[in-house]
Amino acid sequence: MIETKNSTRRVTVISSISEMKEISQSFQKQNLTIGLVPTMGCLHEGHLSLIKKSLESCDKTVVSIFVNPTQFGPKEDLESYPRQFENDIEKLDEIGVDILFHPSKEEMYPTGYKTFVEVKNITEQLCGKSRPDLFQGVATVVLKLFNIVQPYNAFFGEKDWQQLAVIETLVKDINLDVAIIRVPLVRENDGLAMSSRNRYLSVQERQTALSLSRSLQKAQDHIRQGITSVKIISNLIQQNILETEGTKIDYISICDPLSFKEKEQIRGRTLIALAVKVGPSRLIDNCIIEEI
Amino acid sequence: MIETKNSTRRVTVISSISEMKEISQSFQKQNLTIGLVPTMGCLHEGHLSLIKKSLESCDKTVVSIFVNPTQFGPKEDLESYPRQFENDIEKLDEIGVDILFHPSKEEMYPTGYKTFVEVKNITEQLCGKSRPDLFQGVATVVLKLFNIVQPYNAFFGEKDWQQLAVIETLVKDINLDVAIIRVPLVRENDGLAMSSRNRYLSVQERQTALSLSRSLQKAQDHIRQGITSVKIISNLIQQNILETEGTKIDYISICDPLSFKEKEQIRGRTLIALAVKVGPSRLIDNCIIEEI
Repeated sequence: MIETKNSTRRVTVISSISEMKEISQSFQKQNLTIGLVPTMGCLHEGHLSLIKKSLESCDKTVVSIFVNPTQFGPKEDLESYPRQFENDIEKLDEIGVDILFHPSKEEMYPTGYKTFVEVKNITEQLCGKSRPDLFQGVATVVLKLFNIVQPYNAFFGEKDWQQLAVIETLVKDINLDVAIIRVPLVRENDGLAMSSRNRYLSVQERQTALSLSRSLQKAQDHIRQGITSVKIISNLIQQNILETEGTKIDYISICDPLSFKEKEQIRGRTLIALAVKVGPSRLIDNCIIEEI
Repeated sequence: MIETKNSTRRVTVISSISEMKEISQSFQKQNLTIGLVPTMGCLHEGHLSLIKKSLESCDKTVVSIFVNPTQFGPKEDLESYPRQFENDIEKLDEIGVDILFHPSKEEMYPTGYKTFVEVKNITEQLCGKSRPDLFQGVATVVLKLFNIVQPYNAFFGEKDWQQLAVIETLVKDINLDVAIIRVPLVRENDGLAMSSRNRYLSVQERQTALSLSRSLQKAQDHIRQGITSVKIISNLIQQNILETEGTKIDYISICDPLSFKEKEQIRGRTLIALAVKVGPSRLIDNCIIEEI
């Protein structure tokens, strides 16, 4: 028999919630641990690093691809968010994922849907400030995915630092039995943080976008040299970004990495997080300053 | 050996979430189904009817007693809510409950607790109107209890009709695997709906409180005689309650039993729901008019 592309396909694609639940239950009955990697598709090396961690540590790996409408605001890029399903499937095949869960929005949010989860106090700052619907949507869809897939481990990238804090708090507060595994941010060779939204960028904008990682790098250099004033570091980042034409700063935050309370001095563990509009893309990046 | 009261005690009292989870997991490993009856204690015949249903249909029955602070408003009766733990335990012993889960409020809501669940569209009417914190608190604590106890069935009384609708919607929307079992309202011989809050009532107020069930009874009689005007029926109930001294109406609602949309004519399945203040107690009662 000649192997066609289809006959080598190993990833099972599931779009029904009840089917996904059945599969998860059957894995559990066989005492197989499930790793879940929730994504919105358009997979890049950042996603693949999460998937690799799951493949290494769990018996079965489920990747979900769902562009979650409840986390997009009315003026945001839900419709234009990049989708490239066939390409994604090839990547999942190649890397050896067991299940792709790919529900429709009607399957996840049928007519009459009413229930939302809110994690208070840590969702009003940074990305939550300019995207007020974001974290309620994220917490709700992640809770649904956890209930459907019943993972033992779930993998999230530190690029979305605030999202990770929200999900960790959700899990702890409502007594879920899933371990949240943090995976470091992955960068392109030139430093740009991997993001599906990088695909929106023109060649020129792609260059402009480097100002985020470059300004974080400079900030870290200065902090290493002993500067602890948030004002100085924040100004440095701001100047660095604004001197690149075509950037619009949403926020620069130098804050506590758990409470997101703004700091005045860089003392103790500190998060530096940025959101900058470059062309059509709102890009984020961050770094952690370990206790100094 | 002489049997003392303690040596006959069969119900296991658990106050730690992690211990409760371990027990639930061990039941599940033995393929034993768990029935959960969430209560705020001060158990009466209404609760016992829920517990009996659980004992009949599940291998193991867990009753929770937790006076949930997040469902009380700042001016409500959290502090004075009746508690009679020893009496409750005796009842649970006698009926044959397996586990009493009785966490502290610090165990359920430790310092820094942040996560709340909201079921929209069906929580702004009836009890949700005068008690805006109620259903967010109920949905949150019920979700936590479900995650901790992992029940196969959970039992709720139709006295709290709107609460039942909220919990059913929660379970469906976030894809939980628990069957919600509705149990009919239980009345005293004279018609008063069983409630822990009946204990607040003086002998005189206890008589006054009968106006709720009596007015519902009269409404049903008139509807059976062919009256379908909501205005007429609502006025009849109102007059009946107000002619009893010492009553203060919170709401009289004649509405759709799923959406709680007010009706103008009693057509199709209809809920008649009341909340009336009698002395220190805010009492509720309801009845269903089946399709006529």
